Amino acid sequence: MTNIGTKIYSGKAKDIYSTNNEYEVIVKFRDDITAGDGERKDNFQGKGKYNSLISSKLFEILEESNINTQYIKLIENCSILSKNLKMIPLEVICRNIATGSLLKKFPFEKAQKLKVPIIQMDYKNDEYHDPMLNDDIAIALKIATQDELNQIRTITLKINKILSEFLKEKGILLVDFKLEFGKDLKENIVLGDEISPDTCRFWNIETLKTLDKDSFRQGQNQNEVMSIYQQVCTMIVDENDLKKWKI
Amino acid sequence: MTNIGTKIYSGKAKDIYSTNNEYEVIVKFRDDITAGDGERKDNFQGKGKYNSLISSKLFEILEESNINTQYIKLIENCSILSKNLKMIPLEVICRNIATGSLLKKFPFEKAQKLKVPIIQMDYKNDEYHDPMLNDDIAIALKIATQDELNQIRTITLKINKILSEFLKEKGILLVDFKLEFGKDLKENIVLGDEISPDTCRFWNIETLKTLDKDSFRQGQNQNEVMSIYQQVCTMIVDENDLKKWKI
Repeated sequence: MTNIGTKIYSGKAKDIYSTNNEYEVIVKFRDDITAGDGERKDNFQGKGKYNSLISSKLFEILEESNINTQYIKLIENCSILSKNLKMIPLEVICRNIATGSLLKKFPFEKAQKLKVPIIQMDYKNDEYHDPMLNDDIAIALKIATQDELNQIRTITLKINKILSEFLKEKGILLVDFKLEFGKDLKENIVLGDEISPDTCRFWNIETLKTLDKDSFRQGQNQNEVMSIYQQVCTMIVDENDLKKWKI
Repeated sequence: MTNIGTKIYSGKAKDIYSTNNEYEVIVKFRDDITAGDGERKDNFQGKGKYNSLISSKLFEILEESNINTQYIKLIENCSILSKNLKMIPLEVICRNIATGSLLKKFPFEKAQKLKVPIIQMDYKNDEYHDPMLNDDIAIALKIATQDELNQIRTITLKINKILSEFLKEKGILLVDFKLEFGKDLKENIVLGDEISPDTCRFWNIETLKTLDKDSFRQGQNQNEVMSIYQQVCTMIVDENDLKKWKI
C-alpha cells in the first residue's frame, strides 16, 4: 500500500508527491493548461484525467518495447505511481514534420515532412526562457555528459519509431513531441514526465486536424479543447480502461 | 597580373570582386563598422587597412600549420587575393571564455574560463537574424552534411589551438572568435572570410582590456576604437610589413 506524502515539486500542470517508499513518487495531473511560455493560463476540468490516461497508455506501450520509463501504474484518476527520478533539465523535442516554433526560427516550409527526424534539446530554465542548446553548451553547463546526450538521442529516436507506429494504427499522425528524462538511483537514464496532447503535436491522419494543445494556443474554448483531449483518449486507451475510469 | 573584375558580393564590411582567373577573387576590406545585428553603423577610416593586415597575418600563421585557407596574398592595402569559394552560410563561433551573447542566453559566470572550448554554429541568414543551429537542423536545411559539420568542428578546434598559442606570445588572450568556411571547386572545406578584431574577442593578456570591436559596441569613439585596432596590428604584424604598409 502506497501512502501519499508531501508535495516535492509543482510544475505547470503536474505535482509530484513523495510516498513511503523512497524509490517511488506519485505524479498528479492537474487541470491547469498554459501556453506561450506560461503567459496564458486556464483550468479546464477533465484535462488531468485525460492526460493521465493517455500518458499511462503511451508509457505502457513504451515499456512493452523495453524503453525504461518512470511509469509504474495508474492508481487513480490523475495519479500515476512512478519511479523516483532525479530529472535532467532538458526538453528533448523530436520533430517529424516542420511546424510551430521551428517555422518561426528557421526557413522550413510549413508542414514540410522531414526526411530524418530533427532532435532539438532546450534547457529547461524559466529564467532563461528554455533556450535551445547544443551538445557543447549542455556539457559546459554540466546538464549532461556527451555519453548521456548520445543515449538520450538514441532513446528518443527509438521512442519516435514506436509511438509513430502505434499512433498511426489509431488514426493519429505524430508530428512532434517533447520528452524529459531523469536518472534513477542507479544513474540509469529513464524516460520521465508525460506524453500527452500537452506535450505532443497529434494530427488526425486523414484530415490533418489538430488533436492537441495547439487547439488551446489557437484560441478554441474549453469545450472544444476538452472534446479534443477526450477524443484522443478514446482513440488510444483500451475500452476496458475507458469504462473503468468513466470516460 | 591579376585584374580586378566586377563586384560579386557585398557584406557588412567587405566586398568580393571577381578576377580574370575563375579560381581567384579579391576580398576588399571597407572601413564600415556595424554592431547589434547591423543596427549601429559607422565608417572609421583605417579600419579596412588594419583588418586586412591582421587577417592576412593570422591566415599566414594558419597556412604554415597546414590549415587550408582562402588566403593567397595581400596585394595592396585592404585587398587580399583569395581563392574563390562557395561559402557555407554558417557562422562558426568558438569560445574559450564565457562572455557576450553566451551570458545573455545561458547561466554561465561572467568571464568563466571554459574547460573545453564551446563551438556554436549560427545560420548566417539576415531575415532570420542568424539563429543558432544544431546538427540535425543544419542537415535538414541542407546547409551542410554531418561529415562536413564534423570536419568544420575539427578544423575549428585546431585553429583555436594554433591562434591561441600565437596570440598568447604576442600578449593577446583569444577569448572567442567567429569563422566562416566555404568549398573550393574541388569541394574541399576551406577557411574563408576574415580573422580580425571585428570577428574575434581579443583581451590584453595582462590587463584583460578589450582589444576588439567590443570597444565600438561599448560606445568608445572613432579615435579610441581605431587606436585599439592599430595596437593589435602592431602587436601581431611583422615589423617589415608594418613599415611596408605604413602603419
